[in-house]
Amino acid sequence: MSRTDQKKVNPEMLVEMIPFLRRYHKKVILIKYGGNAMVNDELKKQVIEDIVLMKYMGMYPVIIHGGGPEITSMLELIGKKSTFVEGLRVTDKETMIVSEMVLSGKIAKDLVARISSYGIKSIGLSGQDGGLIVAGQKNPELGYVGEIKTINSELINKLLSEDFIPVISSIGCDEDGNRYNINADEAAGKIAIELKAPVQIMLTNIEGVMKSQGDEMKVIPRMNVNEIDDYIEEGIITGGMIPKVKGCAESVKNGVERVYIIDGRKSHSLLSEIFSDLHEGTIIYQ
Amino acid sequence: MSRTDQKKVNPEMLVEMIPFLRRYHKKVILIKYGGNAMVNDELKKQVIEDIVLMKYMGMYPVIIHGGGPEITSMLELIGKKSTFVEGLRVTDKETMIVSEMVLSGKIAKDLVARISSYGIKSIGLSGQDGGLIVAGQKNPELGYVGEIKTINSELINKLLSEDFIPVISSIGCDEDGNRYNINADEAAGKIAIELKAPVQIMLTNIEGVMKSQGDEMKVIPRMNVNEIDDYIEEGIITGGMIPKVKGCAESVKNGVERVYIIDGRKSHSLLSEIFSDLHEGTIIYQ
Amino acid sequence: MSRTDQKKVNPEMLVEMIPFLRRYHKKVILIKYGGNAMVNDELKKQVIEDIVLMKYMGMYPVIIHGGGPEITSMLELIGKKSTFVEGLRVTDKETMIVSEMVLSGKIAKDLVARISSYGIKSIGLSGQDGGLIVAGQKNPELGYVGEIKTINSELINKLLSEDFIPVISSIGCDEDGNRYNINADEAAGKIAIELKAPVQIMLTNIEGVMKSQGDEMKVIPRMNVNEIDDYIEEGIITGGMIPKVKGCAESVKNGVERVYIIDGRKSHSLLSEIFSDLHEGTIIYQ
Amino acid sequence: MSRTDQKKVNPEMLVEMIPFLRRYHKKVILIKYGGNAMVNDELKKQVIEDIVLMKYMGMYPVIIHGGGPEITSMLELIGKKSTFVEGLRVTDKETMIVSEMVLSGKIAKDLVARISSYGIKSIGLSGQDGGLIVAGQKNPELGYVGEIKTINSELINKLLSEDFIPVISSIGCDEDGNRYNINADEAAGKIAIELKAPVQIMLTNIEGVMKSQGDEMKVIPRMNVNEIDDYIEEGIITGGMIPKVKGCAESVKNGVERVYIIDGRKSHSLLSEIFSDLHEGTIIYQ
Amino acid sequence: MSRTDQKKVNPEMLVEMIPFLRRYHKKVILIKYGGNAMVNDELKKQVIEDIVLMKYMGMYPVIIHGGGPEITSMLELIGKKSTFVEGLRVTDKETMIVSEMVLSGKIAKDLVARISSYGIKSIGLSGQDGGLIVAGQKNPELGYVGEIKTINSELINKLLSEDFIPVISSIGCDEDGNRYNINADEAAGKIAIELKAPVQIMLTNIEGVMKSQGDEMKVIPRMNVNEIDDYIEEGIITGGMIPKVKGCAESVKNGVERVYIIDGRKSHSLLSEIFSDLHEGTIIYQ
Amino acid sequence: MSRTDQKKVNPEMLVEMIPFLRRYHKKVILIKYGGNAMVNDELKKQVIEDIVLMKYMGMYPVIIHGGGPEITSMLELIGKKSTFVEGLRVTDKETMIVSEMVLSGKIAKDLVARISSYGIKSIGLSGQDGGLIVAGQKNPELGYVGEIKTINSELINKLLSEDFIPVISSIGCDEDGNRYNINADEAAGKIAIELKAPVQIMLTNIEGVMKSQGDEMKVIPRMNVNEIDDYIEEGIITGGMIPKVKGCAESVKNGVERVYIIDGRKSHSLLSEIFSDLHEGTIIYQ
Repeated sequence: MSRTDQKKVNPEMLVEMIPFLRRYHKKVILIKYGGNAMVNDELKKQVIEDIVLMKYMGMYPVIIHGGGPEITSMLELIGKKSTFVEGLRVTDKETMIVSEMVLSGKIAKDLVARISSYGIKSIGLSGQDGGLIVAGQKNPELGYVGEIKTINSELINKLLSEDFIPVISSIGCDEDGNRYNINADEAAGKIAIELKAPVQIMLTNIEGVMKSQGDEMKVIPRMNVNEIDDYIEEGIITGGMIPKVKGCAESVKNGVERVYIIDGRKSHSLLSEIFSDLHEGTIIYQ
Repeated sequence: MSRTDQKKVNPEMLVEMIPFLRRYHKKVILIKYGGNAMVNDELKKQVIEDIVLMKYMGMYPVIIHGGGPEITSMLELIGKKSTFVEGLRVTDKETMIVSEMVLSGKIAKDLVARISSYGIKSIGLSGQDGGLIVAGQKNPELGYVGEIKTINSELINKLLSEDFIPVISSIGCDEDGNRYNINADEAAGKIAIELKAPVQIMLTNIEGVMKSQGDEMKVIPRMNVNEIDDYIEEGIITGGMIPKVKGCAESVKNGVERVYIIDGRKSHSLLSEIFSDLHEGTIIYQ
Repeated sequence: MSRTDQKKVNPEMLVEMIPFLRRYHKKVILIKYGGNAMVNDELKKQVIEDIVLMKYMGMYPVIIHGGGPEITSMLELIGKKSTFVEGLRVTDKETMIVSEMVLSGKIAKDLVARISSYGIKSIGLSGQDGGLIVAGQKNPELGYVGEIKTINSELINKLLSEDFIPVISSIGCDEDGNRYNINADEAAGKIAIELKAPVQIMLTNIEGVMKSQGDEMKVIPRMNVNEIDDYIEEGIITGGMIPKVKGCAESVKNGVERVYIIDGRKSHSLLSEIFSDLHEGTIIYQ
Repeated sequence: MSRTDQKKVNPEMLVEMIPFLRRYHKKVILIKYGGNAMVNDELKKQVIEDIVLMKYMGMYPVIIHGGGPEITSMLELIGKKSTFVEGLRVTDKETMIVSEMVLSGKIAKDLVARISSYGIKSIGLSGQDGGLIVAGQKNPELGYVGEIKTINSELINKLLSEDFIPVISSIGCDEDGNRYNINADEAAGKIAIELKAPVQIMLTNIEGVMKSQGDEMKVIPRMNVNEIDDYIEEGIITGGMIPKVKGCAESVKNGVERVYIIDGRKSHSLLSEIFSDLHEGTIIYQ
Repeated sequence: MSRTDQKKVNPEMLVEMIPFLRRYHKKVILIKYGGNAMVNDELKKQVIEDIVLMKYMGMYPVIIHGGGPEITSMLELIGKKSTFVEGLRVTDKETMIVSEMVLSGKIAKDLVARISSYGIKSIGLSGQDGGLIVAGQKNPELGYVGEIKTINSELINKLLSEDFIPVISSIGCDEDGNRYNINADEAAGKIAIELKAPVQIMLTNIEGVMKSQGDEMKVIPRMNVNEIDDYIEEGIITGGMIPKVKGCAESVKNGVERVYIIDGRKSHSLLSEIFSDLHEGTIIYQ
Repeated sequence: MSRTDQKKVNPEMLVEMIPFLRRYHKKVILIKYGGNAMVNDELKKQVIEDIVLMKYMGMYPVIIHGGGPEITSMLELIGKKSTFVEGLRVTDKETMIVSEMVLSGKIAKDLVARISSYGIKSIGLSGQDGGLIVAGQKNPELGYVGEIKTINSELINKLLSEDFIPVISSIGCDEDGNRYNINADEAAGKIAIELKAPVQIMLTNIEGVMKSQGDEMKVIPRMNVNEIDDYIEEGIITGGMIPKVKGCAESVKNGVERVYIIDGRKSHSLLSEIFSDLHEGTIIYQ
């Protein structure tokens, strides 16, 4: 514990944090940690540090992670090609097994191990654990791609009350034990609603929801949930951003106070967002 | 729920089970489900049925599973060769990642999904989850092969009291978050001791501990823990069986009442062992 | 623990029981054990074995017992004659004392002792214990014959959560401490409703509700609660069976899912009914 | 609630009770209510009032009752003669059944009903209920006369914490479900010790332990537990009083602070003893 | 423990108390102990004895105290004069500090110490403790005179369940930490409602609510809450009694069953009121 | 919540705090806040901010406060002179009343109100509350100056588990309800030991324990508890510092891991001490 390069803390800065500590005291903070935001080891370390600090400072973070790029790498490694239908990967049995191995057996376990090394208890979970995510097939053509039927938050609430940080892989399970790939954005929203989390943070590889202003693209800092349809109609929100924003709106309509879409590629973006009113990404609110 | 081929139960047989139900009532039954005992899907289904029945009938089964053969297949699939030192696989970083994916991300999740499909809550765990298995490196030459330092049974006990069946992959984690392959027999014994389980069952691919009798090999039905050194000295127990039996003896010396070494390749061997005094494998007792 | 005549269990049969174990897991099973079904010691032993097995296998059995024939014997022994008004015994103070001694002091205590001898905690209760059955006089001409005013299930629920099997004598008590004989069928129904028991089993000395078919009488296997009035109107259900069936219907109308009327004179009829879809008696359902 | 003859309370007298209320606050008071002290209905009413007041005023009374005279009456009523060996009734199966009916089915239930009528929860218990009194045969010649092997106080403690007054019949039960008559003095002492009751009160039909002083007999007001052997040796304590006093001494030697032997034939003797230092019977103390 | 002048208790009188002990068993009794009722040390001792007895006898007393006369004395001692606006003391910062010192630092602490000396746990509380009384300024002209915004009874309920007698000073606190003098009658009523106390007792320096009858004034023994407006309109209730009675009516309209206005200058008036139907003051009821 | 001058937090600094957050996670931090350290309102505000931050960041601060200077002012205000014997104020009844009013009624309540305004629950306590500090007279000549007999930490532990910050005035109470002034350093040490607090912080008006080094005085940064006698013997620690340091040593000998003596006159000295290894005052350790 002897650290010669220790610098003194800045008490004034800590005092400025009091209103934020109070606002989030004992609140569930649902963090969706997208596969595309897992850029490099240093950034991953910072995300974990931010989440560990949130826990030490009295919040209840819950992580839902993605992992698309790593699944693709692993499939390539074993010489398996994917075909896509409308942007969704056709998932046969073997693809599903590889997906589950990568998400639950590699990414979630890695996040848990990193968190644990800071003295915070953590646990990796996926759909079948405690019946967490009950899912069904979305579309027979897509194979083991699922949609969520029910979220069973009992286990998570129990773990939160025991001071765990749950790390959830977005995999669902049906009553016969079949597993399905679930869109992690969708899982994040459904779980945030079920846990009555006031805050949902989408850690992505974009700066926020963007709109063109003159020649350049600028982040839309705040969007009322009721304006979203207008934004889409007017063509400001387009493409893959539409389902993401619609999902966030769904959370807000079901009790989540604010959804933050922030840039996980920036250093310590979580802490900056939580402990300041100078938000950099997009906030969707009621 | 309409099943036309339903046969009536045999009440007399159930009545004969009462003394066994009483003996194991609310007791922890630690089951080591070895990778070599996972012979085929039908047998795996029967093992799960047996464990589900044990839970429904008032016991607290805990599963520690292995998975050597599946790890080997996966390594082969990605074109990775293993070298061995004194029978132990040299485990570099990539081998460790593959091992963890197979054990935690495939085998454990599969067992959890199967159990869940019978209406029993289950959860997959490995060393980093709740600090369950704290381990350190065994031998620098072997890489990420670990030995257990401490077992933290708090999480398991909590889950048992919530009626979960924990499914544990034998992977340890050190304080910096590194993972290690742990011998599943060793993990089973250490966890049985920590949970104060009165019964530890080793589900293997042998009939029991064998000795030659005339021309043929016969199972040794019962071994007092104090006779084991004699058996080894006399050359009756040899080779790979020595560490296995010594591990079981360690459990018995530390409070486990009985360790059963039974043949997982036989149909419903768990149920037969638990609900009868006509044991088929080997019992090691105090 | 050495039993030389031990036979091996039949795992396939146990596996067939899983759906039933799941259906009744942690459910209250209200069993009315009628005095007329207490035919001989061997049958009584089997009933107790069945109930003990239900408890060991995860259900919460609750027993309400009768005892008319034994009360009659005891009254005869002390030379006391009973008069009847419309089938109900006129119950003076002395008759009431004898009834209570026989029900609470003999039959209930005997059932409790038998259950306890299998390692299951049990306790005998009657109306005054914990204010369980508050009753009032039914008809001044009948003396201490009572009707139920309220059931106070708090004590029973507490005992169930402590893994007791409650054995209840159908005796009510008013606020001044007077005791009344209560019809055990009525008590069974009221308690089943109050405990929100999904299953109520009437262990009687008949095969079920009967109807004539050609020359012979046959059991009506299933009766929807809405058909009962028709059966009565059409003269299929008659005499003393009318109030019994009406009482069962009352339970079903108030939340009990199914009432079984079965023949307690057959060996292990409880187990056969619970662990099979091949029912022998009559089921009344919603 | 309108009572015209209501007299005002005497506050000074209540204030004088404070030190006693403080001394016995939340303490278990074990009361042995002997069959010979159940003289008439008015006295029984007063004993119940005293016990109900003790409960309302913050103590935890527990009652062990006897009932010899009533058992004798009942046996006579059914024309059964008793033989005695050294003062103990030879108890065949039928005698045991009658004893249990009278003790558990009549006396205990009557006490419970009386207590309940004052708004206090009560419950009747005997040896088999919750395994309360495990007993074995004392002497084969005496039949079902038992001696206590173990007291299982768990159920009583649970009931006390739920504000019940337990009323216990001194009947023991062995592991096969056989019942035995137990001496109520012995049961009182053993249960007082097991419950760590600081006070044990023996409600008898004598004024206390007596000694001759000149021509008349006088109560010995206080006896140190160490003086008892001297009293016996000197012939001051004789006959049937010897085992009673020895039993009380046993309680004191095992943690009970004081045993009171008082005269249950006097009006409100319990209250007078508890709320005053002017004791009338005999106190045995450490 | 030796008290030679001990008199025997009067059991008949105690038996007469049973219906009252039953009526108030485990009930919250809210006692407003007005500053004007704190006449002398002997009377204060009696009030404490009464409250201690209520606690020992199974009720949950809660005390709200005043202290106007003592505040006036203290202000005079430091040479500070008060001005009044419509009967309310203008309270500047220094007056508020003195008020709080007297109420919380002297009177409450004295009551707590007295109660504790009888072996009952007690604790002094005011508005800021646990956010008990949130208040705001009533009228800027009056300075730190407050009105109640919310009562937070969580802390009191927790303390009651731990067998404390809370002693509450009627001081409110706003969200910035400013303290305000609160009318103790108003606080008593609001807290009684919040605690769902069935009984609220106003210990005052009057005999009750009075009306003239011929030449003399007589206590109105019982007032239905609906008659109060008539009494005021008819000029029977006048002056400072109007807000007091209206406040009591407010309690009754919000769930308090009965409010007693009694004379704290009489010896043991609390006990006399609680343990008798011969009330001396005024009862306001629904 | 809109603050235009909000500056962004410094994530790197927060990350540096992780080891300290981990070290003090859920630990009791006993803070003695001396009357002499209450220099001005701004410093008091900073102390409260530091304590509030400690609470929000997962520690359990407990405050023991002094108030000598304020007591002296108040006594002067009412024209009362103090005499001293060996540095201790002779405390007659009136002085005691004034002391209690100032400590419990002014200082403690002010600290509680300040803490509450940051959204943290707090409560003011002194010796009689829940029997917290049982004391007796130290020396008849000194009047109501007491010494601690026992600390009853049950109430504090209960409040800590409910997330309160207890603010304790160092006043003791004997069994008759008399109050005594207690030295706040002594109370801090005794309570730290009783609460098994690993850390005790003395917030004083000195820089730390000083020793002369050449011409100037320098803080002794660390003192092993075993060196203290040497320091005193060698004349390095002298005068009023001797009992203070001896008291701190007593804490360390009884389980407190470290006592910090720090300068409460410096801005945010608590935070600087807790979240850094660059200590400025003196640490006494085992």
